[in-house]
Amino acid sequence: MQSHYLPLVRSQTPLVHCMTNLVVTNFSANGLLALGASPFMSVTPEEIAEIQNFAQALLINIGTINETDAKAMLIAGKAANKAGVPVVLDPVGVGATAFRQKIIKQLLAEINFAVIRGNAAEIAFLAGINWQGKGVDAVTGGDAADLSRLAKTVAQKYRCITALSGEIDFISDGKNVRQIQNGTQLFRKVTGSGCLLGAVIGAFLGVAQPADYFAASIEACAVYAVAGELAARDLSRETGTFAINFINRLGTIDALQLADKARISEI
Amino acid sequence: MQSHYLPLVRSQTPLVHCMTNLVVTNFSANGLLALGASPFMSVTPEEIAEIQNFAQALLINIGTINETDAKAMLIAGKAANKAGVPVVLDPVGVGATAFRQKIIKQLLAEINFAVIRGNAAEIAFLAGINWQGKGVDAVTGGDAADLSRLAKTVAQKYRCITALSGEIDFISDGKNVRQIQNGTQLFRKVTGSGCLLGAVIGAFLGVAQPADYFAASIEACAVYAVAGELAARDLSRETGTFAINFINRLGTIDALQLADKARISEI
Amino acid sequence: MQSHYLPLVRSQTPLVHCMTNLVVTNFSANGLLALGASPFMSVTPEEIAEIQNFAQALLINIGTINETDAKAMLIAGKAANKAGVPVVLDPVGVGATAFRQKIIKQLLAEINFAVIRGNAAEIAFLAGINWQGKGVDAVTGGDAADLSRLAKTVAQKYRCITALSGEIDFISDGKNVRQIQNGTQLFRKVTGSGCLLGAVIGAFLGVAQPADYFAASIEACAVYAVAGELAARDLSRETGTFAINFINRLGTIDALQLADKARISEI
Repeated sequence: MQSHYLPLVRSQTPLVHCMTNLVVTNFSANGLLALGASPFMSVTPEEIAEIQNFAQALLINIGTINETDAKAMLIAGKAANKAGVPVVLDPVGVGATAFRQKIIKQLLAEINFAVIRGNAAEIAFLAGINWQGKGVDAVTGGDAADLSRLAKTVAQKYRCITALSGEIDFISDGKNVRQIQNGTQLFRKVTGSGCLLGAVIGAFLGVAQPADYFAASIEACAVYAVAGELAARDLSRETGTFAINFINRLGTIDALQLADKARISEI
Repeated sequence: MQSHYLPLVRSQTPLVHCMTNLVVTNFSANGLLALGASPFMSVTPEEIAEIQNFAQALLINIGTINETDAKAMLIAGKAANKAGVPVVLDPVGVGATAFRQKIIKQLLAEINFAVIRGNAAEIAFLAGINWQGKGVDAVTGGDAADLSRLAKTVAQKYRCITALSGEIDFISDGKNVRQIQNGTQLFRKVTGSGCLLGAVIGAFLGVAQPADYFAASIEACAVYAVAGELAARDLSRETGTFAINFINRLGTIDALQLADKARISEI
Repeated sequence: MQSHYLPLVRSQTPLVHCMTNLVVTNFSANGLLALGASPFMSVTPEEIAEIQNFAQALLINIGTINETDAKAMLIAGKAANKAGVPVVLDPVGVGATAFRQKIIKQLLAEINFAVIRGNAAEIAFLAGINWQGKGVDAVTGGDAADLSRLAKTVAQKYRCITALSGEIDFISDGKNVRQIQNGTQLFRKVTGSGCLLGAVIGAFLGVAQPADYFAASIEACAVYAVAGELAARDLSRETGTFAINFINRLGTIDALQLADKARISEI
């Protein structure tokens, strides 16, 4: 694929306001910095509305959410909507507890999201399908047509882009779906791999026009997956080394590698 | 030693609910993932009881505890006890402040712990002995018989397994004590080395029957110490590299290495 | 330069109480451990006053501050002042939001800081100058005389040492200014590089007499910058590797390397 937004991220250094979970703050900030973006990490109720005045994107990630955070996210999300700042939602583990389900319902009702990024189980939950009833193996081994349909359904339901991550990524704007056949199994063994992707999508949205959010999301996912593929070279289960390689690769990945490696197709 | 629980951890992927401190969330989650377990990080009061319905183990670590966390830990611990989920306690720095002492007293009064893991000073505090009065050097250089007795005393007092970590690890069920002479001095120079061990013990309990918690705890500590020993090879003070190597080693350590390296004996 | 305080840090293991942001807890603790100091991470209101009884230094970093943290920092800072424990302030992103400005004003009014460490924009804000009006490039490319004057002005205004970090570091006691021409551009690409420096300054203050805080701050910044320079060798944009190398280098840097590499001069 032709690299269009990656050079813009590096030249414009978009500020990505991350309201994310306590496990991945450091990895997310370092990943954004490596890529060329500028992280701003804050869940402080007193300042999260003001930040939308200078942010280029907002990430809302519910990985370790509590009541205070949820209120802050509602305020920040609405302020971002008003200011025209694109908002990415990462509904981490939404199916796991009643509390997360309640919070996600509120967030989806009150905020317009530009992109929702999640794994198959999370996107299925938003589609109203009990994916876990199909077994966990289905998530990784699963049927491409099913996963593609899931991504499309959620994009239509919430009028946004969906990025369903897994062995293959499926990105949909509700009409079209693109699949990306890159990446590595090692992503699943590093905490925050998905969370950082949400932040990276934010960085790409931050240098794109709203009409181009679909294209920007596809490129973000492709850059991420190819960087992961390159980082996993010659590794089997050395996930410590992989995480470090991956940060390196986010810093060094270029247009040539992307053109050479990215396997993107319609589905 | 023969490896019995490690393969079960890798095949069953036990979910370990970590209620742990803000410094080590990322390292703990990545360590569990590398090993083959599944971390779930949450201290959210609204969901921590529900999580016990699908968790295989619960870790309570007081490293950066506050009043809100303490209440959540009490709720989670009692729910885990009711659901038959084994609970590991890590009384980080319990002797340091009056607040920690108050909280630990409550936790020990209201929750049945399967395992208490700590360093010599923390276990000594639980035994009612002012270890710091003996100097800090005694903790590392100390007398094996003293440390063994400490582990046994606390195991009897709280009717649980004690895992006293240090240059030599001492694990006791209140009757027997095993010492593990593996590990590396570099553990002390990486924050969360002890905290992650608590989580790893949780993963091993999560695939064991209650009657076998002593055996599972010994194997957990041995796997951990041998992985550390292998990770420290050829290093002197390069603790950044050690931490990465160690995550790698948790992913690659196998039955053969354990059989070859583990030095476990009765004391 | 002659190394005076580094050996003292390694032999005395000063306990540095870090009240810092959620993004850098792990990196800060590991950096202090590598260097030879002892981190204590807590923002718990119930214990932060008591900690000043055994801490050798206190760091207050407002990177992800909220109302609760702010109150705790005021309590801790005043207790540290009373106990004679040196306090370091890191006014992260102070210019970014009204909330941070309000908090910093309170902290500066009620606590006597031994050292304030920040980048050019943060120090300029404390000096009452709107640095952002001069553009961001000025911060990195900027005029040494301007930056030196900024450091001196803030040191005079708050009767403390100022450490202004950037491509060149400027350290001032209000009368004199020293510049350190070491370091690496990669620091800017690793989150918490500045935050960890604040903690490291704390460690050096923790082994110095109040009359020598200026000298100790200069050595802390020089050790840090030289370790960064050595860690960046042969790297271009591999920031994952750099962060690990840097932790290693904090552990291995010695008097000889410091004497050989440090470029410190009056300005």
